[in-house]
Amino acid sequence: MAQNCQGGLVMREVAIVGVGMTRFGRLEMTNVEMFSVAGKEALLDAGLAPRDIQALFVGNVFATFEEGQSNLAPFLASDLGMKHIPAIRIEGACASASLALREAFIWVASGAYDLVMAGGTERALAMETPLATRTFAMGSDSRYEASTGITFPGVFAMMAHRYAYKYGLPLKTLKEHMASVAVQNHLHALDNPKAQFHRAITTEDVLTSPMIADPLQLYDCCPFSDGAAAVILAPFDQARHLVKKPVRITGVGQASAGPLYTHPDITRVLARERSAYQAYHQAGRTPKDIDICELHDCFTIAQIVATEGLGFFDFGKGSQAAADGESGRKGTIPINPSGGLKAKGHPIGATGAAQVYEITQQLREEAGSRQIPGAKIGMTDTLGGDLMICCNLILEV
Amino acid sequence: MAQNCQGGLVMREVAIVGVGMTRFGRLEMTNVEMFSVAGKEALLDAGLAPRDIQALFVGNVFATFEEGQSNLAPFLASDLGMKHIPAIRIEGACASASLALREAFIWVASGAYDLVMAGGTERALAMETPLATRTFAMGSDSRYEASTGITFPGVFAMMAHRYAYKYGLPLKTLKEHMASVAVQNHLHALDNPKAQFHRAITTEDVLTSPMIADPLQLYDCCPFSDGAAAVILAPFDQARHLVKKPVRITGVGQASAGPLYTHPDITRVLARERSAYQAYHQAGRTPKDIDICELHDCFTIAQIVATEGLGFFDFGKGSQAAADGESGRKGTIPINPSGGLKAKGHPIGATGAAQVYEITQQLREEAGSRQIPGAKIGMTDTLGGDLMICCNLILEV
Repeated sequence: MAQNCQGGLVMREVAIVGVGMTRFGRLEMTNVEMFSVAGKEALLDAGLAPRDIQALFVGNVFATFEEGQSNLAPFLASDLGMKHIPAIRIEGACASASLALREAFIWVASGAYDLVMAGGTERALAMETPLATRTFAMGSDSRYEASTGITFPGVFAMMAHRYAYKYGLPLKTLKEHMASVAVQNHLHALDNPKAQFHRAITTEDVLTSPMIADPLQLYDCCPFSDGAAAVILAPFDQARHLVKKPVRITGVGQASAGPLYTHPDITRVLARERSAYQAYHQAGRTPKDIDICELHDCFTIAQIVATEGLGFFDFGKGSQAAADGESGRKGTIPINPSGGLKAKGHPIGATGAAQVYEITQQLREEAGSRQIPGAKIGMTDTLGGDLMICCNLILEV
Repeated sequence: MAQNCQGGLVMREVAIVGVGMTRFGRLEMTNVEMFSVAGKEALLDAGLAPRDIQALFVGNVFATFEEGQSNLAPFLASDLGMKHIPAIRIEGACASASLALREAFIWVASGAYDLVMAGGTERALAMETPLATRTFAMGSDSRYEASTGITFPGVFAMMAHRYAYKYGLPLKTLKEHMASVAVQNHLHALDNPKAQFHRAITTEDVLTSPMIADPLQLYDCCPFSDGAAAVILAPFDQARHLVKKPVRITGVGQASAGPLYTHPDITRVLARERSAYQAYHQAGRTPKDIDICELHDCFTIAQIVATEGLGFFDFGKGSQAAADGESGRKGTIPINPSGGLKAKGHPIGATGAAQVYEITQQLREEAGSRQIPGAKIGMTDTLGGDLMICCNLILEV
């Protein structure tokens, strides 16, 4: 079962054989401790020993800044007992773990390694909200944008205003549609034991929550979170002998864009559209083939825009579709059954791997009370910085 | 011209078709500005346009901490006009750029991409020396080591003491041998227009310079530096048509180790020994085959230990060999003809790419007055953290 990649050489099919994840929320653990929990769970899930793993790729954004730790990856490998292996930290803001997974993918697909671990870890809750907000905003342009005081709630608030204006939607209507995203993701998280929030909320709760950056209110925003997630990859031919249901990675995509001030229209995320195209093209799939998707709902408007950029709904229609429950468990494309960044939590360097954790559990039919029946093809979507980097994976059983 | 990698699949041979580098020293430029200079020079060297480049891999350690910029890679790609490509920041302390080159290597070797850019950029001189020293020490264990106040001069001072004790060398003798490393690297840098220091020094200068961490004096230590370097890779078959003398990457290695307190003997760098073995094995070469080497002389004792770990001299003999001029331009193995970290400078996230810049110029016979005649096979060696990560490349014409 070999597949071609862009260059025409024969590449191996790659599959996921193990996943692990901490609970998300306030963990009061170091990055080494958190990733150790996630990594051990992934090893146990795959039935592998630490010495079986040949390389580690790990996403992390703020260990230097927040924990005083650079060169994080060898500490994680060493603590897990995966001694002396190549261990690489990868950073692309909130997309870091997805980038790490994509690097791991090519090392296995190329035949260089058989068994590798990829994932991510992040501590954000040790920082108070104002510092965390400022720190996260380091993903925006330090030369021309940070000096204006812009932070991510402001960026996505502008996106919401522009969306309403562009599609002639009354802001009050858009806000109700956005609120439905928050309500839905909180509902999904009720069934996720590892989610940060386990509390159903109402549209009324969202619309009466404190204003953060007009029109975004508190419940339009994902939380700060601590957490880690890990994934083990293997060649598909080997994976079949290791686990009952290997989950194949059939498409990967990654793209970038310039600073925010170069974007012609911030309701269209060009990095996502290019990245998703790559993933669809490699997998030989279209948006209609996707049964389930974990996507980057850092704010409620971000989920609406993502469902359009990935091709699930027409541009300008994602808002109404969310309100109509089209992205709910029983909708045409179930989105964020884990609760998403909004309610599962968003430890930024770990988020992409947590998305793969959820899709893997769903495709294996091991998602318990949040199982989407019959899901065979899943997708992940992770956005970093202010619309500057995106990475997508397509997973299949 | 295909070669096998570990997994048995056929991989393509990879070659360097362009290199670029800023002057090292105090540059007063942003990371985007510095990398732009290096990247444009590499594109010009390869005769390529920005739109030809399919992906960017960039090493950087402290842009978040020092410049308030996370997600650096897409900003670099966008500024160079390489729009929308996958752009990935990679961090492994001082080895970051070498790790980035190794990631770039596998994407080309596997056939996924044809033309990619890899490199690194770092600003360190904007920080005053005490802050920079503390910041660099984030590469040591934040849990058990940083709290003791340990910084890298202290780590390598312990290495020097242990080296003298283990091999029964009077400390005074070792200090003279170490001084010869500094004298030699400053001599080499006189011929490097991009080096930070252009000043010959004497053994007397070294031995009378201020004490930093006994037995290391000021001139035993490399400087803090700003700078960037970039390298463009292509499949060898394509490279032959692009440039007159493509430089093949015939071996890559990377390995890690646990925190310093787990090392049985800090005069032996196990991450390096394993990494170098991988590179030699892949290239089908031995230390005797190497004509020229750029290695990690962050301190003079580090160069001595590296020449042993790479197999150029027996363990315990590197010190005397340095004093005897065996690693000089006319020695058995010319080391750091660029001036090395010690005199060329050490902008940490860029250093691995700068080593490749030098070896490439030497193998092309374009190194001017610092040319080592007849050099056909070169090696780079980059160490990160307190002996925790190492990456080696073997380059050939």
